[in-house]
Amino acid sequence: MDSEKKISPAVINRLPRYYRYLGDLLESDITRISSKELSAKMNITASQIRQDLNNFGGFGQQGYGYNVEYLYNEIKKILGLDRMYNMIVIGGGNIGQALVNYTNFEKRGFVIKAVFDINPRLVGMTIRGVEVYDVDKMEEYVKNNRVDVAILTLPRSQAVKVAHDLAKWGVKGMWNFSHVDLQVPDDVLVENVHLTDSLMTLLYKINEMYSEENDLHHLQNGLPVKHRQVEEEEK
Amino acid sequence: MDSEKKISPAVINRLPRYYRYLGDLLESDITRISSKELSAKMNITASQIRQDLNNFGGFGQQGYGYNVEYLYNEIKKILGLDRMYNMIVIGGGNIGQALVNYTNFEKRGFVIKAVFDINPRLVGMTIRGVEVYDVDKMEEYVKNNRVDVAILTLPRSQAVKVAHDLAKWGVKGMWNFSHVDLQVPDDVLVENVHLTDSLMTLLYKINEMYSEENDLHHLQNGLPVKHRQVEEEEK
Repeated sequence: MDSEKKISPAVINRLPRYYRYLGDLLESDITRISSKELSAKMNITASQIRQDLNNFGGFGQQGYGYNVEYLYNEIKKILGLDRMYNMIVIGGGNIGQALVNYTNFEKRGFVIKAVFDINPRLVGMTIRGVEVYDVDKMEEYVKNNRVDVAILTLPRSQAVKVAHDLAKWGVKGMWNFSHVDLQVPDDVLVENVHLTDSLMTLLYKINEMYSEENDLHHLQNGLPVKHRQVEEEEK
Repeated sequence: MDSEKKISPAVINRLPRYYRYLGDLLESDITRISSKELSAKMNITASQIRQDLNNFGGFGQQGYGYNVEYLYNEIKKILGLDRMYNMIVIGGGNIGQALVNYTNFEKRGFVIKAVFDINPRLVGMTIRGVEVYDVDKMEEYVKNNRVDVAILTLPRSQAVKVAHDLAKWGVKGMWNFSHVDLQVPDDVLVENVHLTDSLMTLLYKINEMYSEENDLHHLQNGLPVKHRQVEEEEK
């Protein structure tokens, strides 16, 4: 890939959101939009939007704005969403099963082909038509089938070892739900979904806004009280 | 809360990770650690670690390092994890059920007290002992019970309206799994888990590293081929 095309991680992280908003506009039969209008919807500055989208060749036209369908399709291509991806799930527990049952992935071309688990009660079952195999079969499967992404939803004690094995067998993408940081070679891409960390961050922010003296456990009429409001009332 | 204590969002986002690593050290009976050792484990520079932890009063001591248990407990307090939190789930589908079944939350004091759904087939059921109520009962429940966090796992078409209602009824924390950006007042804290966006970001990174000519669909021995390696072989 062209090194001039190197796009900052911050922009990359915003791309799916652009894609989502443009898809919504398309569904509402909106054919063109200015960076200003998009800015109001997305709560990003118009100049940030222009800067972001300029990375992909500046599709906006002065006085006309962006052609929604064109931009949607360009971002779709940039994100690589004009193809299918084969995924496997390692760990057929709650989260693993929920992901297999989430039909929206398949609609977008992200297809879960197999689930692997260590639990003999799960092995041999199917989840929405997807077979659950014993983890012993994983090496053979990965070596004989195209696997674009391995979804790790197994206990953290096993995740590091399994990720290491998968990398050795050639899997280049890992979507990690296990609550541990994986150690994989640089040519393996990892995206983490650390649910517990995300919830802790939320709780921190709640605690920071709603002070300790007045914390969530001291309620007024059964509702949490915002500290700052109380201070204002006291003035 | 003291305005001098204002901590940057980047640091806040790293706190749960520090907490996780320190917990692991404690479990391995490691009682003290230098910023350098912690740096090697966490893949963050030692100076970054010192800077981050200085935000909370500089617990490290020259030549001794950090007292693991003390630091663990301090971060626990800072994150507000020394208390219990009451949560409700709105949307008893796949992800909602998976979260209720995830026992680790309860162990940490994040207790799911009720699930709300619109589907009459789910209403009246219990998931791991947690009752599923009709969404019609939500207002009454929220007004009469302490709800620290509402977990939104409902279709995006309904999420914005429900979040708006919950905010009106006094819920101050929302953990949003619905694939839409919520519009809530500034005094309501939202943490998003946009799974589809996360997966798209991963796919983008895979595509960026493994170029198009040589993309994931052109395989050698059933395995994806890394572009750079091929270039090297051609030399």
